[in-house]
Amino acid sequence: MATITVPAEVPPVSDDVEELHKAFEGWGTNEGAIISILAHRNADQRKLIRHAYAQAHNQDLLKALEKELTSDFERLILLWTLDPPERDAVLANESSKKFSGSDRALVEIACTRSSHELHLVRQVYHTKYQKSLEEDVACHTTGDFRKLLWPLVTSYRYEGDEVNMSLAKTEAKLLHDKISDKCYNDDDFIRIITTRSKAQVNATLNEYKNEFGQEINKDLKADPKDEFLAMLRATIKSLTNPAKYFEKVLRLAVNRQGTDEGALTRVVATRAEFDMKMIKEEYQKRSSVSLDSAIAKDTHGDYEDMLLALIGSTDA
Amino acid sequence: MATITVPAEVPPVSDDVEELHKAFEGWGTNEGAIISILAHRNADQRKLIRHAYAQAHNQDLLKALEKELTSDFERLILLWTLDPPERDAVLANESSKKFSGSDRALVEIACTRSSHELHLVRQVYHTKYQKSLEEDVACHTTGDFRKLLWPLVTSYRYEGDEVNMSLAKTEAKLLHDKISDKCYNDDDFIRIITTRSKAQVNATLNEYKNEFGQEINKDLKADPKDEFLAMLRATIKSLTNPAKYFEKVLRLAVNRQGTDEGALTRVVATRAEFDMKMIKEEYQKRSSVSLDSAIAKDTHGDYEDMLLALIGSTDA
Repeated sequence: MATITVPAEVPPVSDDVEELHKAFEGWGTNEGAIISILAHRNADQRKLIRHAYAQAHNQDLLKALEKELTSDFERLILLWTLDPPERDAVLANESSKKFSGSDRALVEIACTRSSHELHLVRQVYHTKYQKSLEEDVACHTTGDFRKLLWPLVTSYRYEGDEVNMSLAKTEAKLLHDKISDKCYNDDDFIRIITTRSKAQVNATLNEYKNEFGQEINKDLKADPKDEFLAMLRATIKSLTNPAKYFEKVLRLAVNRQGTDEGALTRVVATRAEFDMKMIKEEYQKRSSVSLDSAIAKDTHGDYEDMLLALIGSTDA
Repeated sequence: MATITVPAEVPPVSDDVEELHKAFEGWGTNEGAIISILAHRNADQRKLIRHAYAQAHNQDLLKALEKELTSDFERLILLWTLDPPERDAVLANESSKKFSGSDRALVEIACTRSSHELHLVRQVYHTKYQKSLEEDVACHTTGDFRKLLWPLVTSYRYEGDEVNMSLAKTEAKLLHDKISDKCYNDDDFIRIITTRSKAQVNATLNEYKNEFGQEINKDLKADPKDEFLAMLRATIKSLTNPAKYFEKVLRLAVNRQGTDEGALTRVVATRAEFDMKMIKEEYQKRSSVSLDSAIAKDTHGDYEDMLLALIGSTDA
């Protein structure tokens, strides 16, 4: 499911550390060396490298990279090098502090990580920011966005497969009634989406489609410019079909005037080690071109090289 | 801080298991033997006993106790024997399923346990009920109660001591403004109480008292019969001064026509191993009699004996 490739024989951590340190020395930076190491180490290996780098050179590897690199390539390398829960904490912190209704980082972290992973993010958030994640989310958002995002980021969903079909029927009807009344911010509507297990949400939404004729997200398109409705749709899609959700984010990020590097970087950095293979398959199915060629067409230089390496492009 | 006493030399677990099993045999039950063992074992020891009992007798010790005992004594023994996170999960489940505005179990679990302990309760809740705690709380409560309890039970508060004094000033004023406007269910009022660290809440409420002349809970007494206001006061008191909060619950449970065994049992079973010593000191200070004599006066039989043993009464 991951797309990154790790060499069969990984060099000793101390060698990686020295190669990276060499890449930073003198005039200019050897970006190729940085990519060839960091793009091909998994989370545990990168953690060891970061730790060993700090011991050997008395500096956080992240700080060294920050000093050497710039722009989109810098952002991608920094996000990638972080351990997943710390990376999510950073993204969530940025996103809550300068919140905009079109930002999807919080929704993605709350809906596509496992309950345990989301809890780890909340733990790291304490250590890193001396605050709680929900404290920042609830403080920096307002209105309907807060009403949705606050319970989302504090959720600890049950992860079993059991489904209560009679509950699914009742709650599908409730969702449909609220949508018919345009009560998109209804307390119970939000309660169902933010607290039920993913299996139960899936059952409820299947029931919705069977009973009322079309997918709930079609019914949530009353006003295509309404940012809260768009966030509701993103929440539902990322909960029930994360690969399709991420495919669409990537598609919209590259198929437009001027690439959306923010979204492209975030999705590649956060998914390369998890479900990027499925996301790429969805992309190929939907667009009849590979994600690799779409990214190669839309980006360039070290940024392009790093993106392609992370999504396991054979050209990289 | 705990009041239970554990013998210097604890018998082997297998001896405890056999003594308990013997206490259940034949006509009648040897309640004294049950008390003499279970009231004097800490959580880890009780866990081992329960495990060993299941292995030796192919029956959950809890089921065996349930069969043998009745009434308040049964309830106290069952709650006490449970491991603390499982006990809290049971209490939270009962409380959310037949929710009443005067029930304090959810507030106590959300506000007086550490963030890590509350997370453990949520973990056990999954295993025990195939649901999430917040799913039940949000589903079975409504209106203002839901608005307060849902974020409370999902909170994972930062636990550091750092305090932001300028934030404390701003938020103290906000709380005061909302109370002046009688907006007790205001979004930001609830956000401050349910997401800020306990240290920060304390700083804000001290600021409140300094700036506006009296404690916030005095200002939250506009209507003494309003159950939501009472729950807000309980939330604030249990967050900022759990020993005083629990002292008052115990005082109200015994100083009335007919003891409130529900509250008495819950507080003794949940606090005996943690802060019951402080609660007893508060009780003595406030009432000029010891909690031991108040309980001895108000209860009788095995229930009394078990309560006194748990609160470390020298007469027990």
